[in-house]
Parts: sequence; structure tokens; C-alpha cells
Amino acid sequence: MNYSTFSLRQDGALLRVKLSNPPINLVNLKMIEELFQLSGQLVADQNTRVVIIESADPDFFLAHFDIEDIEKSITDPSKAGNYPDINALQALALSWQALPQVTIAKVAGRCRGGGLEFILALSMRFATVDSRFCSPEAAGGFLACGGGTTRIGMMAGPARALEFLLSARDFSGAEAERYGLINRALPASELDGYVDALANSIARRSMAVIGMHREVFKHAFLPTVEPLFAALAAENDGMRVAMAGSEMKPALDAMLAIKQTRENELDLPATMQRILPAR
Amino acid sequence: MNYSTFSLRQDGALLRVKLSNPPINLVNLKMIEELFQLSGQLVADQNTRVVIIESADPDFFLAHFDIEDIEKSITDPSKAGNYPDINALQALALSWQALPQVTIAKVAGRCRGGGLEFILALSMRFATVDSRFCSPEAAGGFLACGGGTTRIGMMAGPARALEFLLSARDFSGAEAERYGLINRALPASELDGYVDALANSIARRSMAVIGMHREVFKHAFLPTVEPLFAALAAENDGMRVAMAGSEMKPALDAMLAIKQTRENELDLPATMQRILPAR
Amino acid sequence: MNYSTFSLRQDGALLRVKLSNPPINLVNLKMIEELFQLSGQLVADQNTRVVIIESADPDFFLAHFDIEDIEKSITDPSKAGNYPDINALQALALSWQALPQVTIAKVAGRCRGGGLEFILALSMRFATVDSRFCSPEAAGGFLACGGGTTRIGMMAGPARALEFLLSARDFSGAEAERYGLINRALPASELDGYVDALANSIARRSMAVIGMHREVFKHAFLPTVEPLFAALAAENDGMRVAMAGSEMKPALDAMLAIKQTRENELDLPATMQRILPAR
Repeated sequence: MNYSTFSLRQDGALLRVKLSNPPINLVNLKMIEELFQLSGQLVADQNTRVVIIESADPDFFLAHFDIEDIEKSITDPSKAGNYPDINALQALALSWQALPQVTIAKVAGRCRGGGLEFILALSMRFATVDSRFCSPEAAGGFLACGGGTTRIGMMAGPARALEFLLSARDFSGAEAERYGLINRALPASELDGYVDALANSIARRSMAVIGMHREVFKHAFLPTVEPLFAALAAENDGMRVAMAGSEMKPALDAMLAIKQTRENELDLPATMQRILPAR
Repeated sequence: MNYSTFSLRQDGALLRVKLSNPPINLVNLKMIEELFQLSGQLVADQNTRVVIIESADPDFFLAHFDIEDIEKSITDPSKAGNYPDINALQALALSWQALPQVTIAKVAGRCRGGGLEFILALSMRFATVDSRFCSPEAAGGFLACGGGTTRIGMMAGPARALEFLLSARDFSGAEAERYGLINRALPASELDGYVDALANSIARRSMAVIGMHREVFKHAFLPTVEPLFAALAAENDGMRVAMAGSEMKPALDAMLAIKQTRENELDLPATMQRILPAR
Repeated sequence: MNYSTFSLRQDGALLRVKLSNPPINLVNLKMIEELFQLSGQLVADQNTRVVIIESADPDFFLAHFDIEDIEKSITDPSKAGNYPDINALQALALSWQALPQVTIAKVAGRCRGGGLEFILALSMRFATVDSRFCSPEAAGGFLACGGGTTRIGMMAGPARALEFLLSARDFSGAEAERYGLINRALPASELDGYVDALANSIARRSMAVIGMHREVFKHAFLPTVEPLFAALAAENDGMRVAMAGSEMKPALDAMLAIKQTRENELDLPATMQRILPAR
């Protein structure tokens, strides 16, 4: 299959996915569609045991959900999801979470919004110490509703999660490790080596061995399944409140007015603070 | 409303609470009553979105529950709580936990016993790296029963919580961060700036946005509610065992005999080890 | 009672257990039997309040389950467990977890496989920063089935636990602390002093005080009990899959062929990578 928003490279039992959706690796509907297709392909792929997701752009692992596509999904009913309690990004994340392969995000640069929500559903996350993680939604009058509010809460605990989400600032990779959002942060010069060594180790395991570990975890974490889905539904309830309110639409319009340029996105939190009204 | 154990300063949507109950910021019944009144005031306060709790005393954020008042509540039935399964400090903590505002403790100096139990129920906690956190109760023959044993267990996990509680020593802010009791520890020169920047960011969010995040967490952490209340009841069961036993009363008497002076309280764990009998 | 795989030293309310099963402190059936007997002794021991488990061998705290005994339990029905859903190492760990005393592992050197699984059930764990923790099972075609897969999952969370278990590499004490597997890692020169001070503090508490803390935790962590046992059963399901497959037996045979020598065990992960076939 041919994909336009990422490239694939097979290396034995290891599949490398290189995200490339210029100019700034926005998560748009096209990328979501293609990542869905890739997960469908992986379900039936008997040869791949480990997947590494990395970025072709050293500054942007994934920028965030394309605001133009958010606006479309609000204003154009044909672009809205078909199910009230699960949205496209939540569904994408769940489909990747359910894959039999071990999936690893290797983050350098910025990973924000919907991009962060996506990788929180992968098996593992590694990053450079000075990569930047951010959920900018609260500053725009809404919330991370692709599973991010839920998963950040469950991973970091309520106190640190609320700080991360409501501050809407960039957290470094080192901070993300301390808050439990990633397995670990590494100096930029060590990240590739560390993740490659790990992926190669895991690629030596059979699917039977990987599966028996997952089966134990399935039982150990069974009590989190029902709260996960209830919280995902609450994310959508929150999004409906936001869409009915008077904050979100003007914020998105203001962001679109200055375009999603590389210059504006490098320090997105500062850009948002600058153009959005003080309360 | 006028308060005698703390002062208030409103700064836009931010309310600063400065604890001041000389000489050493003991948590006494008067302070508990006033903190209850403040929480009642905040429930109806539409203008405040963030609350910072700090201390006027650089050495004592909050010393601990006033031992004179503990003795009264044991010996004077009219000072005992009305409900067997919830006590005054547990109720205070729960009332603050339920506030719609984001509540932040900013700790320098010592934060021990009931003072620590109170801030564990706030939304977030920050401290200087050399602040001191301690649950001295076990050394006095009883247990933290204002929600502290329960919340420390849930935040730090059983192994680290048992170490913290049974050692009854001072843990530095840096250690408290590693054990998950606070969001993070910062150098003394950076604490104010960090917490102010965070509070100002959160003050820019609407109550609608803050509320939709909390609603997601409510579902994500629903399985912890029943265990929280069961464990709070077990704290009171433990306290009844302690009050019926022969360790606690002599320990409290010994502490009262030397007075709760600043000198004795600066290194409270050492003071307790010195005056309480070895087993 | 006389034990051959460890020595005991009573020091007031503190019992020191020094593991000594030369040449490399393998966990064999004899040691398991004796640790079971010791737990039975401790249940009825009114004088001991704290137990420290340490090793007489500075290089090996506990090597791992003796592979000869694993093979016997697979091939000799009389050595197999009597219950399908709980095995000997799980039962040993549960019996120690249920002890009234506070049990502390003090780790220097290597702590791998079944040795690690055992100490994960103790009350607390401390280690030197350069000690080595490893679950080598996945590299041998099976899984940690003495409660380790379950407890590592619950302590480290699924992402870090899967990294730890599937990589099958040595993690330093410092890394084990970051992943939540131990209370803390300390410089080698500070470990004894830290653990002794803690043990002496806890030894000053009465069993009533220790017990009232545990009782609160029992309620706070009640929701983890059912998943713990379901996951232990899943470990045994996984082990049956491994024993019926074609990976584990040849891997164990290959390991036995080169003997469990000190030289081969010092860097066990490297030894396994060298002699086991690439996939």
C-alpha cells in the first residue's frame, strides 16, 4: 500500500514508520485515515513484531491536529464522526493500542495535541531530553479529546496531569519522563541507539512470548478498561460543551487567521498567549 | 469574612491564602474551622478560579495538628466528631478536594502531620527542594488519620508510603517529588516564579474548561472513590485502636510536657526520638 | 531451625537474613523450601518486627531460579506443583507478602529472574545505584511466572514494564528506582546506613502501629487483589504455552550446556544473546 503522510521501511521483524506531512507534520484527516489503514495492515502482518514511529522533520514529530480539519468537523456534519461516544482520533488510538505488535514512538522535536494523544496509546515512548510535549487545547477553550485527557490523567496522576493540561505549556522530554508520560528521555545523541537496541531485542522475541506478557497485563489492568471508556465518553461530552460555548470557535479562528506556519508553531504556547484574549 | 489564622489577597481570578497562626503555624481547631469556612465561601465564589496556599512563616508551612487539640478531642466528648467514620480533618480535606477551583499548595519550610494531610487533598503541590515533609504520627503511637495514610498510600504506592509513614522522618522536597507526593520540587529561588506562572496560566482558563477536564478525571479515577472512603474509615478504626492502647497518650503527654516550641519543632523527628522511650 | 541456604541474625526486633547458596546464590527448590519455612516461623514470631534480607555474595544478591530445577519441574511430574493456578514461587511470594513484619530487601550485585520476583513481594526494596535487575525469561522463550510479570506491570505501569520484561537486559539500581521497582537506589557506601536507620526506626514501632497502617492500605488497594490473582493465573497460562512450544526447552538446554557458572552469569544477558539463536 502507498501512503502519502509517512514512509515505511521494513528491517526484518522491525517496521520503521517515518512521519512526513510537510510543512510541519500536522495530524490531518488524511494522516489519520492512513494511520488507520496501516493499523489494519499490521493486524494481519505476521512478519512484523516491532514498529518504530519517528519523524522526518527534526523540529516537528507531530505538530497537532490540523485546525482546519477541526473546524470542518465542527461545521460540516458530513465530516463529523458517526458515533457520539467515540471520535476519530480516539478510535485511531484504540486501534493502535490493540495491535499485537510492540509499537514505539521515538520523539525528537515537538509533539503536541492530537499527535501526543496518538502516541500515548502506543506500547512505549522515548524522547530526547529537550523534545517538547504539550496539550494546547485548554488554551484554545477546549480539551484533548483523542484520549489524551484520559491517558495523561491515568499515566501522570490527577495532580500532575491537571498541571500539564491546564498550563498548556511545552514540557521538555525530561519533564515528561518525570511525569510518567514517556518511558524515558535521553540525550539526543543516545536516543537512536537506545531505541534501536531495544527494538532489536524485542524483535528477537516470538509473538507467542510477546503475547503471553500482554495477556498477563490484560488481567492486571482489567480494572482500568471501564474507566478508560467512560472517560473517553466524558472527553466527548466536554467537547460538546466546548463547541456550544463561546471560547473555542473564536480561538480556532484566531489561530487560523495567522496560519499554522512553522514560525508560529515553533513556540506554539507563546503564539497562543500572544493572539488569544486575556480573560 | 475575617479570618484569624490566615490572610487573603485577591488578584483577579487568583486568590492567595497566606497561613499565619503564630508561633509555628500549628493546625488547631480554630484554623480547621476557618479553612472550612473558606471552602464554603469558595464554593459560591464565581470570581476565583485558582487558589494558592502559602505560609507567612518561612520555617513552618504548617507544623502539624496541635497536640493540645488532639488531647481535647480524645478526652472531651464534646470535642469529638459526630460521625464515627469521618473526622474533622478528613472532612476538611474532602471539602477542599471537591472545590471547583484549582487549589495549589506552595510549600517552603516544614509541612508535617495534619498540615501535610490537608494539602494532599488539594489539586497540586509544589515545594522547595529543601522543604521538609513528615508524618510523625507513627512515632507517637498512632497514624495519620486525616486522610494522610490513605492518600500517601495511593500517591506513593504501598512500598514507598510504608517507608515514609513508619520512618516518621523528615523527607526533603526533592524526596517528596521522587515519591510522588508533590508535583515537583524547585530551588527556593524558582518556586514563586514557577507557581505564579502556572497559576496565571490556569487563571486564563474558564471554569467551563477547567470543569470539563475534571469531569474526565472523575470518570478515569472513579474506581478509587470507594477505596478512598473505605480507607478513611480504616484510618478511624486505627485511631480507635491507638486511643485504646497504651502508647499514644503517654507520647502525646511527653510532647506536651516539653511544649510545642519552635526550637523543639524545627527538627521534630529528632525531638521525638529523644523524648519518647525506645521500645 | 537450621537453614542451609541462608543464615539468621537476631538483633532486638530486627531479624537479618543473609542469603548464602554458593556459588552464585541460585534460587533452587531447597532455598524456596527454606524461605517457606522461614515465613512460617515468622508468622508466629512475636519478637521480630522488621526483617532485612541481604546477600553474603557481593556480586549476586540472587542469581535466578536454578535452571536444573526448572527443567525438573517440567519433565518430572512429581516435581510439578499441585495446583494449576498457583506455582511454588508465586506461593512463596504471597506468603511473604502476607507476613505481619515489615520485610526489606537490601540489594547489591545481581538480582534476576525468580530472585527479583521474590523480593517484589516484600514490603520494600533498596539497592545500590549500580546493582543489576533483570527478568531474563523472555529471552529464554518464556515469562516471569513467580508473580514478576504481574508485579512489575503493576509497579512500573504497562509501558515501562513491557520494556523491562521484553528487553531482558540488566537495569541498574538507578534505573529500577526510576521505573518504580524499588523504593530507591543509593551509592554503595550509603546503602547499609540508610537501610539500617530505616529498619531501626521501624523496629521502634509496635506491631499495633504497623498493623493499623497496613489495615488502611488493605482497603486502599483492595481493587488490586482480584487483578493480582487473575494475572498470576495468566502467568501460569503463559507458562503452559511456553512449555508446549518449541522455544523454551532448547533455550534452557543451551543454558545448562554451558553451566550456570559465575563467569557466564556475571553478564547473563550477554551470555544469553551469545548462545541463543537469533530469530
